[in-house]
Amino acid sequence: MYLHQVGHYLPQQVVDNEHFTKLNGLSDEWIVQRTGIQRRRKAAPAENSHTMGVEAVKALLDKIQIDKNDIDLIVGATYTAYDAIVTLGHAVQHFLEIPDIPVVTISSACSSLLNAVEIVQGYFAMGKARNALIVTSEHNTGYYNETDTVSGHLWGDGAAALLVSNARIAETDMTIREVITGGAATSGKATEAVVLRPNERGVIMPFGKDVFINACTYMPKVSLQVIEKHGLTVSDIDFVLPHQANLRISLNVMQTLGLPEEKLISNIQYLGNTGCAGCAIGLSEQWNRFETGQKIIVTVFGGGYSYGAMLLEK
Amino acid sequence: MYLHQVGHYLPQQVVDNEHFTKLNGLSDEWIVQRTGIQRRRKAAPAENSHTMGVEAVKALLDKIQIDKNDIDLIVGATYTAYDAIVTLGHAVQHFLEIPDIPVVTISSACSSLLNAVEIVQGYFAMGKARNALIVTSEHNTGYYNETDTVSGHLWGDGAAALLVSNARIAETDMTIREVITGGAATSGKATEAVVLRPNERGVIMPFGKDVFINACTYMPKVSLQVIEKHGLTVSDIDFVLPHQANLRISLNVMQTLGLPEEKLISNIQYLGNTGCAGCAIGLSEQWNRFETGQKIIVTVFGGGYSYGAMLLEK
Repeated sequence: MYLHQVGHYLPQQVVDNEHFTKLNGLSDEWIVQRTGIQRRRKAAPAENSHTMGVEAVKALLDKIQIDKNDIDLIVGATYTAYDAIVTLGHAVQHFLEIPDIPVVTISSACSSLLNAVEIVQGYFAMGKARNALIVTSEHNTGYYNETDTVSGHLWGDGAAALLVSNARIAETDMTIREVITGGAATSGKATEAVVLRPNERGVIMPFGKDVFINACTYMPKVSLQVIEKHGLTVSDIDFVLPHQANLRISLNVMQTLGLPEEKLISNIQYLGNTGCAGCAIGLSEQWNRFETGQKIIVTVFGGGYSYGAMLLEK
Repeated sequence: MYLHQVGHYLPQQVVDNEHFTKLNGLSDEWIVQRTGIQRRRKAAPAENSHTMGVEAVKALLDKIQIDKNDIDLIVGATYTAYDAIVTLGHAVQHFLEIPDIPVVTISSACSSLLNAVEIVQGYFAMGKARNALIVTSEHNTGYYNETDTVSGHLWGDGAAALLVSNARIAETDMTIREVITGGAATSGKATEAVVLRPNERGVIMPFGKDVFINACTYMPKVSLQVIEKHGLTVSDIDFVLPHQANLRISLNVMQTLGLPEEKLISNIQYLGNTGCAGCAIGLSEQWNRFETGQKIIVTVFGGGYSYGAMLLEK
């Protein structure tokens, strides 16, 4: 299984920490110290998780070396649905004008990227697809309460699209050597730590400490599982791209793995927590940085809880 | 792939058509003539798509012949999320207390049951799961506007859970001989005919006629595709269980297939449109009716649009 290309989209508006200082008194220093976040993007009023997803697909289409009509599976991933019936996947299919291919939209909160990759892997295993489009998109500001001093300042908007293929398309493709996902709804305060109940509005994080502890436990654990399964050691890993929830979580993951900060890929400083799109945007941003033979671990953790890790090799 | 057992849950409150006559003047006769719906169930204030899903799982657990700890994959399916971060799948994993198995929640609107089956089929093909739990649950009344004279009277609540296994567990298992799904977001008014935008509240169906036309086109078409793929003819089919959207759609599907009304399985008369749970509830209700060798087509169509068909053999 190969990752052929990634494209991403970020809304134009930049919201800096001073916005929150004015709104609810949180200082730039306080926010940066606790989260690493300096600024984030915010969708325009006419934008939503569908429009951003489509923009990410447009960015991807500019890069791919196959005809868009060779796409035979679409998996959308979002917890911030613009429409729960006409889903993100449908919106993308409509835009692409490719009829009669399987389309599904999923959510395992912030870990959905890897659930999507694993679902695609299943379609490849069945021979039911060969070129899958994964679209991750989060419109957190459509659901957040920005005056919430606990988590209002954490969220950002953005989207990314990935073309995953069963056979290598180009020399520059990355090999997806492994993906493992798991639910962890039995751990800690999984069912109440981060919630988004559309009928009650607002994504909130009443138990951030529990999220922190579990994220710092599961991401290194599943990363090691993937590394060891392939007979590698941690020192073989060139980059780690963890879910972008909090810079302190990411640094903690690196420390637990025994890897230096230089190997960490992070965009939370300027994007905030962009949900399941965070790591996908990171892959898109860093695409040209990866050199042949380099190995990258993408590891995720999401509310609910869920976790996963993927081993990529350039 | 085998369907080992199905369980379902329906909330207690029954809402008859007179409720709508009082509310907005729609008569029982008018509603029955256009939709076939005589009554539907409504979740209690403390219920939601999670609690109903868990109740359906409890009903399933009473029937299965494997230990619940042998479940190694959970796929939730709903478009009426109680929580989009702590998803239906997570709620079920939490209830079952089974750690570290893949958990994902999906939506392709009313067609999600078959998308879930196909995703499970993929996990089986990869060897990543052997006993999968699919949970379909819809809390339509949590999102509808009951005074809407166009679609307020259509919706009902309910849930069903299915145990799907890679190897036969019991003599009474049904063989899943085929499942095909497809997105149809390129057809008709797919992206606007039925929508549920959580930030705008309310599931609405501004283009019911377009839904009718496309449902009546796609369900027979994909059913025939499945039937012919297995060298069967329509006369080999003992029962057809179409998505429960409208009795007129179901009858039209039977007519197009050239099958008599007696072969139609329908619960919309007393449950209304229970979204992606409708067919699953139907399988649970009719479970003991099926005899060895009988063949059942389950065919779905959902907003967005999406479609699918599954061939079951007892």
